Amino acid sequence: MHIDDLSRRIDFLREIDRLKSVIRQSPLLDASRKENSAEHSWHLAMYALVLADYATGAVDITRVMKMLLIHDIVEVDAGDMPIHGASNANQMDLEQQAAARIFGLLPDAANREFSQLWREFEAAESDEAQFAKALDRFQPLLVNVFTQGGTWSENHVRYEQVLERYGPTIQRGAPVLWELAHRWVASHFSVVDVTNAVT
Amino acid sequence: MHIDDLSRRIDFLREIDRLKSVIRQSPLLDASRKENSAEHSWHLAMYALVLADYATGAVDITRVMKMLLIHDIVEVDAGDMPIHGASNANQMDLEQQAAARIFGLLPDAANREFSQLWREFEAAESDEAQFAKALDRFQPLLVNVFTQGGTWSENHVRYEQVLERYGPTIQRGAPVLWELAHRWVASHFSVVDVTNAVT
Repeated sequence: MHIDDLSRRIDFLREIDRLKSVIRQSPLLDASRKENSAEHSWHLAMYALVLADYATGAVDITRVMKMLLIHDIVEVDAGDMPIHGASNANQMDLEQQAAARIFGLLPDAANREFSQLWREFEAAESDEAQFAKALDRFQPLLVNVFTQGGTWSENHVRYEQVLERYGPTIQRGAPVLWELAHRWVASHFSVVDVTNAVT
Repeated sequence: MHIDDLSRRIDFLREIDRLKSVIRQSPLLDASRKENSAEHSWHLAMYALVLADYATGAVDITRVMKMLLIHDIVEVDAGDMPIHGASNANQMDLEQQAAARIFGLLPDAANREFSQLWREFEAAESDEAQFAKALDRFQPLLVNVFTQGGTWSENHVRYEQVLERYGPTIQRGAPVLWELAHRWVASHFSVVDVTNAVT
């Protein structure tokens, strides 16, 4: 292993420490503060491990974990993009530049692997990416349900908007999780038809 | 999949949110605050992915990642055990009770898998556990080197103590990383003999 190879890997690991300072809209479950993107990525990798059986199709859970560990690293440069809020037309460009710069710190083979995993996640076409995307929507939904509305209350988000912004992604990658989430959301918004169910 | 199985998995995922509030001694690299154990676990899983080639033996990197993602979950009940500081005679008991309670929230098969991975990590005998342990020592060492001494300065830790507390574990699981770390540490403590080297 070439010494320059190792020092590039170390530079990358130092650089991504900054993900711990990217603050998301979602609170912690005890509402003590907002969540950061590094601990969010850890939690999502745990969601993948624990909920693997609920994925659509037979997913390679190692690739799902890798995707979730790296999916937010571009935020070191590009910042977090909230689900509820004005969309930034340049966000995709910013994230692509960020991926090129940050993964580009790594030796070529590792750069290619991480860039490819990140693009696969963003494309949301493979079974693995669809499951990873589903978890990335399911986790903040769970947080909102268990924190009296969380970002929904803050942003005056309505029931129909929740269904629209979370439903299709979770349904596609993990339909049983959407069944559960849908009941939670209906109960949260007191939509009577659907609340006769387990929470 | 039984509904009770899913709700136990959700309970576990909610419970481990508390790992984001377990504060370690190590600072972030920009020294803005102390690191928490959830984001530390994320970073270590990334260390495993990025430094896999430096492991002693042919490790199964998926098992290493899993171990590192769960290795600190017992701290939700037992708290973090600093490298430098009075050792708590009861810490092992506390951690075993914590593992039983927290992993016990999961359905039986998942409880068994996580308990076994955690015990394997603690035992530090398998190649995977030795590599995971090496990274768990290498990361805070790197942080101290790049934050003007970090917890070493705070705790008046001497050069020989660093070698003794970090060296054997890193050397065993990832000898090339120890070569590099040893040079960093020697340079940090201005030990002249060993500093004629790359940092």
